[in-house]
Amino acid sequence: IIISSASAAVIEKGNYRHFMEKEIHEQPIVVAQTLGAYLDPLAETVSLPALPFDLAEVKRIQIVACGTALLAGQVATYWLEELARVPVQIENASEFRYRDPVYEPGGLALFISQSGETADTLAALRHAKAGGQFIAAVVNVASSTMAREADLLLPTHAGPEVGVASTKAFTCQLAVLAAFAIALGKAKGRVDAATEARHVRLLTEVPAAMNAAMAAEDTITSLAVSLSKARDILYIGRGPDYPMAMEGALKLKEISYIHAEGYAAGELKHGPIALIDENVPVIVIAPSGPRFDKTVSNMQEVMARGGQVCLLSDAAGLVEHGASAAASILMPTVDPFISPLITAVPIQLLAYHVALAKGTDVDQPRNLAKSVTVE
Amino acid sequence: IIISSASAAVIEKGNYRHFMEKEIHEQPIVVAQTLGAYLDPLAETVSLPALPFDLAEVKRIQIVACGTALLAGQVATYWLEELARVPVQIENASEFRYRDPVYEPGGLALFISQSGETADTLAALRHAKAGGQFIAAVVNVASSTMAREADLLLPTHAGPEVGVASTKAFTCQLAVLAAFAIALGKAKGRVDAATEARHVRLLTEVPAAMNAAMAAEDTITSLAVSLSKARDILYIGRGPDYPMAMEGALKLKEISYIHAEGYAAGELKHGPIALIDENVPVIVIAPSGPRFDKTVSNMQEVMARGGQVCLLSDAAGLVEHGASAAASILMPTVDPFISPLITAVPIQLLAYHVALAKGTDVDQPRNLAKSVTVE
Repeated sequence: IIISSASAAVIEKGNYRHFMEKEIHEQPIVVAQTLGAYLDPLAETVSLPALPFDLAEVKRIQIVACGTALLAGQVATYWLEELARVPVQIENASEFRYRDPVYEPGGLALFISQSGETADTLAALRHAKAGGQFIAAVVNVASSTMAREADLLLPTHAGPEVGVASTKAFTCQLAVLAAFAIALGKAKGRVDAATEARHVRLLTEVPAAMNAAMAAEDTITSLAVSLSKARDILYIGRGPDYPMAMEGALKLKEISYIHAEGYAAGELKHGPIALIDENVPVIVIAPSGPRFDKTVSNMQEVMARGGQVCLLSDAAGLVEHGASAAASILMPTVDPFISPLITAVPIQLLAYHVALAKGTDVDQPRNLAKSVTVE
Repeated sequence: IIISSASAAVIEKGNYRHFMEKEIHEQPIVVAQTLGAYLDPLAETVSLPALPFDLAEVKRIQIVACGTALLAGQVATYWLEELARVPVQIENASEFRYRDPVYEPGGLALFISQSGETADTLAALRHAKAGGQFIAAVVNVASSTMAREADLLLPTHAGPEVGVASTKAFTCQLAVLAAFAIALGKAKGRVDAATEARHVRLLTEVPAAMNAAMAAEDTITSLAVSLSKARDILYIGRGPDYPMAMEGALKLKEISYIHAEGYAAGELKHGPIALIDENVPVIVIAPSGPRFDKTVSNMQEVMARGGQVCLLSDAAGLVEHGASAAASILMPTVDPFISPLITAVPIQLLAYHVALAKGTDVDQPRNLAKSVTVE
């Protein structure tokens, strides 16, 4: 679905200056709506729509998407491998469709697209279907072509997204993928009832934690003024915070035109650290948890080379290392399983406020279309 | 092995100003040396060192590496899937080692490292070995720890590499990986004698084609003057030219400190194209072949938004679309199978001459070490 100017016009911005701002702030509600379609919070169970194949038979997963949806998929690779112990490959749709991918029996191909019409992703879906794969689609538009052609439709309930830079569709994709990972783990006998219940409880905490994450907006607004003067900004993270670093960079690129780039924190010293000087701020995404110390050690390598660091972490992380960073952003303390959904909020707000400070057109950035229905 | 200053000092630069320049120009010779260890050009066959497991049993491949070696591995994913029809996953070592990867019976884990000592890659190798995977290692230092610990040692014969930015080690890695892909395809019954012979003939053409590619050096030297003034440069490509685009960007970052970034050409319109204006040159890697038209169409999207494009292609490609680009670089006409080895030459020369024009320290770029033996 291409959102036409007519339909966009009737959607109110309310008290917000931009659709993007409104859509960022809507996330606690639409993520709750989306989770409501998959979780039973009283029984503490996950359920999926009826599906014409047996999830227990899924032997591997190929995720295919473009842009922000691809990064949602990359966060999900960590969840799927951890909870279901199924190997996951991920590739952008424009590459996937033009080579001759290896399809094996029992393979599930999972496609992610806000509109459900993204040309490259749709072509890839049809290729995988012809190759005998089970087809799942995570889409926001339930009447879209991908929704119709999938064996398993996993809808997000984000409502119409008007801002060209995806925000609420992204976090709703994450919510669906997290629920799907639990369900797949259950079907594969890897997730017992207690583990399922624990993960369902964590997901039900997401909307409130997202709301709490909005509290950093004032800090971020101040920070954005100086960041808006940078020509280049790097984002780093480990584990699921690595695709979140890429998402932070993509968001900033899209609406502020600053050349931002996301890196796996451990890869920085294999080349990109040569870029670092006092003019290249580095946003370090490091909630406390199993990867915290390793990421902090990469942060210290950056600081040793004169890099100006902004540490995004929770209270425990900032108590330990916030003082050494040039700036910091506080996020709520949450379990590592749900932290990508929560870190999404400050990185979106950061991109939004940097773009505001630069005076770019937030909702209609140059060169970009909302749905890419050409190749 | 950490190359000490003592051993570096006894290696002559000859008539070259920098080790990097020398190492770029050595590539036809060292790639021929490396191929000589794997190919029988008269019988037109490939052979591997003795190995303690049956290649035919390999059901999937996990490639793990860092930096430039990771990009060599990413080029190889296309070769391996095409010739052997084995699914390949690839991940940077710092991510791979800190999650809990799914190891299946019959899995081959393949590690790539010039030094054979890269800390993250070595830790990942040991993790995969403990996980019951067959272990292959592509290394340039035959006495290294990874060489000793691998089940299958696939040496490169690049000789000592002194320049911090890897050049000849990279193309020798590609040569070994291409030979390995043919051997695996043969063992899996996917590559017949005629196909093997054809691919061996193509690989034997590589050294001469690399030499021919050096002829672009004068053009590149002129181009480098204007490119050296850019703050940001994008590289795009499709298929194996996508990792080559990332390698071109990494090389430029490492030695010129220009913020370069490589993208899959088809992904550009899903966000990064917002960066494009007349100040961001775009290097388009597009030898003629099956993906040429699609990449050119992405090039035209860039030009429609004011982007200054430099098209790297062969004679047929430049005849068709060279005139519309702001600049072009001619590469020899080669089969798509070997083109990554050939495009490596102009992208390395481009990084080198841009760095020369900027006056940075080519052989010892700031912030970087030759072998990263810490995490």
